Amino acid sequence: MAARRRTVDEHAGRIAALVGPALARHETETLPLLDALGRLTAEAVTTTGPLPPFRNAQMDGYAARSGDVRRTPVVLPVDGVVPAAATELTTLAPGHLLKVMTGAPVPTGADCVIPVEQTVEEDGGVRVLRSVDPGAFVRDAGSDALPGTVVVPPFTRLAPRHLAAAAAAGVAEVTLRRRPRVAVIATGAEVVPPGTPLALGQVHDANGTALAGLVAEAGCDPVLVDLTPDDPAAFEAALQRAVEAADLVLTAGGVSKGDFEVVRQVLEPLGADVTEIGMQPGGPQGSASVRGVPVVCLPGNPVSAQVSFTVFLRPLLRAAADLPPIPPAALPLAAAVHSPKGRRQWLRGVVKDGSVYPVGGPGSHLVVAMAAADVLIDVPEDADFVGAGTVVSVLPL
Amino acid sequence: MAARRRTVDEHAGRIAALVGPALARHETETLPLLDALGRLTAEAVTTTGPLPPFRNAQMDGYAARSGDVRRTPVVLPVDGVVPAAATELTTLAPGHLLKVMTGAPVPTGADCVIPVEQTVEEDGGVRVLRSVDPGAFVRDAGSDALPGTVVVPPFTRLAPRHLAAAAAAGVAEVTLRRRPRVAVIATGAEVVPPGTPLALGQVHDANGTALAGLVAEAGCDPVLVDLTPDDPAAFEAALQRAVEAADLVLTAGGVSKGDFEVVRQVLEPLGADVTEIGMQPGGPQGSASVRGVPVVCLPGNPVSAQVSFTVFLRPLLRAAADLPPIPPAALPLAAAVHSPKGRRQWLRGVVKDGSVYPVGGPGSHLVVAMAAADVLIDVPEDADFVGAGTVVSVLPL
Repeated sequence: MAARRRTVDEHAGRIAALVGPALARHETETLPLLDALGRLTAEAVTTTGPLPPFRNAQMDGYAARSGDVRRTPVVLPVDGVVPAAATELTTLAPGHLLKVMTGAPVPTGADCVIPVEQTVEEDGGVRVLRSVDPGAFVRDAGSDALPGTVVVPPFTRLAPRHLAAAAAAGVAEVTLRRRPRVAVIATGAEVVPPGTPLALGQVHDANGTALAGLVAEAGCDPVLVDLTPDDPAAFEAALQRAVEAADLVLTAGGVSKGDFEVVRQVLEPLGADVTEIGMQPGGPQGSASVRGVPVVCLPGNPVSAQVSFTVFLRPLLRAAADLPPIPPAALPLAAAVHSPKGRRQWLRGVVKDGSVYPVGGPGSHLVVAMAAADVLIDVPEDADFVGAGTVVSVLPL
Repeated sequence: MAARRRTVDEHAGRIAALVGPALARHETETLPLLDALGRLTAEAVTTTGPLPPFRNAQMDGYAARSGDVRRTPVVLPVDGVVPAAATELTTLAPGHLLKVMTGAPVPTGADCVIPVEQTVEEDGGVRVLRSVDPGAFVRDAGSDALPGTVVVPPFTRLAPRHLAAAAAAGVAEVTLRRRPRVAVIATGAEVVPPGTPLALGQVHDANGTALAGLVAEAGCDPVLVDLTPDDPAAFEAALQRAVEAADLVLTAGGVSKGDFEVVRQVLEPLGADVTEIGMQPGGPQGSASVRGVPVVCLPGNPVSAQVSFTVFLRPLLRAAADLPPIPPAALPLAAAVHSPKGRRQWLRGVVKDGSVYPVGGPGSHLVVAMAAADVLIDVPEDADFVGAGTVVSVLPL
């Protein structure tokens, strides 16, 4: 009677073909350094000048001509102090010293710095106790990086040390890969935002929050979170806002077989593919392309929506954000489970002592039970029973 | 001549004793759900009502009295449709059906839902093809959670599934552990912000950016990033702003033996401990308590500041933010290194093929070389040479 249901793998392939190219556009944005931590660079950060920018003292001490201090001890007159913020370059007279602080420009003529610990102040000057080699305790301009050096390569995930190198190079803003932008539209006449008192027949929306959180966790940017009743005009207006703001639109609800399925009503005339997938939770699923923007239609039960995101979208969003994939693990099942034949089931589970324990029931409304889970247990389509001790595939949440 | 230098472990103990208690205050803040991803709950999130809030249909189909459909097939009249957003509870007349959509309230009198797939519409009503058990496809109020159920325990790192459960419970805001607030004051007359053209003798500040990034990466909140010249009044003003805004203040620079050491000048009269640590980079270090707020004084060279943060502060900040510690690893050294005896050296290294390669030199101004590193190589205080192949301790950056 019923047509053969599409399998999870078939639907995953279809969603990947629709969503993958849209998220591969890799536009850029420019942000201040302090907002760029953890982001991916789109372009190299390079030095324009040398680093350090000028020859400077590595120690607090005395700039000298090394020839003048070849024989020690020797007492030499001190002509003054070069502070770290010296704004013009001084010249060191032969046979003299100039006091320098760490980081201060080394005066013209000097070729070494004698650390203050190797000197004694006395009448008429400073007694230098030990000679130093030419170049000692002097950091040459460009000794860290010459002009035009790449200090942060493109496609680097920015850590604090990268930000520090960019800052040292004088760069205040960096050009980043823009995070893929994802809009979320939850639907349902009975659904009201959290924080609103419930009338009879109403429930609080969990999908907007769940999907926005899942999008952010997958390294993408939830740019818009909307909630519309089962009213085609309201949904259409939300959809227009969403396709303008985002690279990908996710909807929740409105795709099953009821009489008030707003997502189907609006999107099927636009060529949407809405079908029943052989999975539980999450049977009814769909997809469409609206003004070139992919729209992925998830079921409205909050557990179904979260599981569907995890199975179909998480791998695509993480890849687009250059986050590593989250591979399934193989673990023994601590307790037997039943499953409807013909549907690949994703049961919620908790991993403990190397085994996975099913938690809550299979119901797609058990959103509290899902909060307690840390994996999805993947029960194959053709299994109706899996015994305790069987090794199963689990997908970390 | 020189007094015995304080060891790294001694200084670490001192900083921990100063900073640890200040970061253990655990104040709270309340944020909207969508801003709470990845944060730690301070209080349990509990249901006020049952979840689901009312008895509802698990499938699109027909609400029935199970007694009326015990013998099938049977044709029963349909009295109408209960939409998902039904605002008053209908009653099902004996011997009748009411059409229900998934999630709709199950009418009074009905005790089961017959899935639409098990029915055929015909003149005068609907033919029910198969009987169902009492309770079938009905989700009872409270079957996910009873009123007063903890849906998210205190001290939970919030994942999307936790946010979803809180939203389903109608909660729009959650009470979180406030992240420890850290202020950063970089100092130096010669230091100007990135993005500013350099005059002779000036360098761009890397410390503000580096330390703010390190604070954020360690799970804390860099609330203020300041830069002051070597002017005691300016530093004092910045310090007052910082101790008002933060649980911990970090300074960079101004603690060595030069003539213009603003941090020492201002903090030593307040009882600061400024001393030379037996480490490289990062010899001069200090700490103080200003109006009850710990102030940790790091050296001004950008590599010294980053290494000092990583060695002394990262473990404390991560612990305060409930992030796991980053333990050192043991790896063979790919090339021999030299080190000054009497100072524990933290060389920058890159891990490749299971070995660690030193990168850049030991100079504390090599901020670009540091950006290329991914570990610090811990060379013990008493070593002046470590041969290739020796297993060394490395601290991941």
